[in-house]
Amino acid sequence: MNHPPLKTRRFRLLLLVPGVIAIAAIAVSMNLQGQAVAAQNAKKKSHASSLVQFNKDGELVRPTGYRKWTYVGTPVTPNDMNGGNAPFPEFHSVYMSPDAFDHYENTGDFPDGTVIVKELVSVGDKEATSGIGYFMGEFVGLEVSMKDKTRYKDKPGNWAYFSFGHKYPLKDHAKAQPAASCNDCHDGSADDDFVFTQYYPVLRAAKNSTKSN
Amino acid sequence: MNHPPLKTRRFRLLLLVPGVIAIAAIAVSMNLQGQAVAAQNAKKKSHASSLVQFNKDGELVRPTGYRKWTYVGTPVTPNDMNGGNAPFPEFHSVYMSPDAFDHYENTGDFPDGTVIVKELVSVGDKEATSGIGYFMGEFVGLEVSMKDKTRYKDKPGNWAYFSFGHKYPLKDHAKAQPAASCNDCHDGSADDDFVFTQYYPVLRAAKNSTKSN
Repeated sequence: MNHPPLKTRRFRLLLLVPGVIAIAAIAVSMNLQGQAVAAQNAKKKSHASSLVQFNKDGELVRPTGYRKWTYVGTPVTPNDMNGGNAPFPEFHSVYMSPDAFDHYENTGDFPDGTVIVKELVSVGDKEATSGIGYFMGEFVGLEVSMKDKTRYKDKPGNWAYFSFGHKYPLKDHAKAQPAASCNDCHDGSADDDFVFTQYYPVLRAAKNSTKSN
Repeated sequence: MNHPPLKTRRFRLLLLVPGVIAIAAIAVSMNLQGQAVAAQNAKKKSHASSLVQFNKDGELVRPTGYRKWTYVGTPVTPNDMNGGNAPFPEFHSVYMSPDAFDHYENTGDFPDGTVIVKELVSVGDKEATSGIGYFMGEFVGLEVSMKDKTRYKDKPGNWAYFSFGHKYPLKDHAKAQPAASCNDCHDGSADDDFVFTQYYPVLRAAKNSTKSN
């Protein structure tokens, strides 16, 4: 065999070292970045599945953590303006699952897996240093709506509605209400899909900012 | 010099390669992980500094993105209950900087750097399928309060208050209002620090969940 001189061979071998290190470094870097991207994507895809749970009977388990979701708006239907017995007592703080909100902001559509929580809050004071009006008192109820084309394929609009009660203590789980109780009204009167966006400027502003506009 | 045989020397050199690669890989990995941790820490520490900005005159620049902060509550002081001219027209959607909220939830204290945004929203409809009441119309104004022991060391409670207007178009920047306009009333009537937690069950619930309780 015709070996190159020793010095040349050693030099070639040494030349390999930085190359191998660079490749290894790039591989490690790609792997770590890949993991980070995968984690980010997993986070992005965490629609309903990770935010709400169902019991073995298919009932929705009362969600938690929704007070850190994206706030959408607050109508108030006070008892004293509804004969002492408001259908939804009294403030309704409405939250939307953050990923669904981001999707809505990007596309103008409520994605499959959208969860909307309506937290009912009593009227506390009616006068404060900032004026006369209605000021929040205590939490009194919780309702949830959810769009799921698979689970609620037979519901109008694929939306299901759940009530955990209008007074405390709330129920721990709830089954989807009959379409006549909720879907029909939402279908007939809500401005966008089955959502009353006409009362939620946050949603209208988000839709107006969509990339398609 | 007493060189070892060629084969032994080459073998030693080869032995070095995986070691060097491993060290390089660990170094790259540590660096990337370090960057990730640093980014995470920066995010965790992003109180006021990263959420609000000031112009060269020290005025607060109108914040953006606050509709994804943590929602705190919504009083409504309708014009028709305040002689046609509510001091704060009309719904006040209140948001808190998320890291400050998390701190409050953990400790029961509003940390230095807390930012609270009050978005003013007109009353739109007064009757809907859900009952008679007040339903949100359009965004009409924006106010901000901020606790900063350094920047507002001379303000009562170290809180400063800013108004970007009660009708659109809003101002692009605003200077801190005199203490008599805001601090005095918040100091005298607000339940916790300078914040009216008596009207915000979300804050009361967060405080009740603190680890110190």
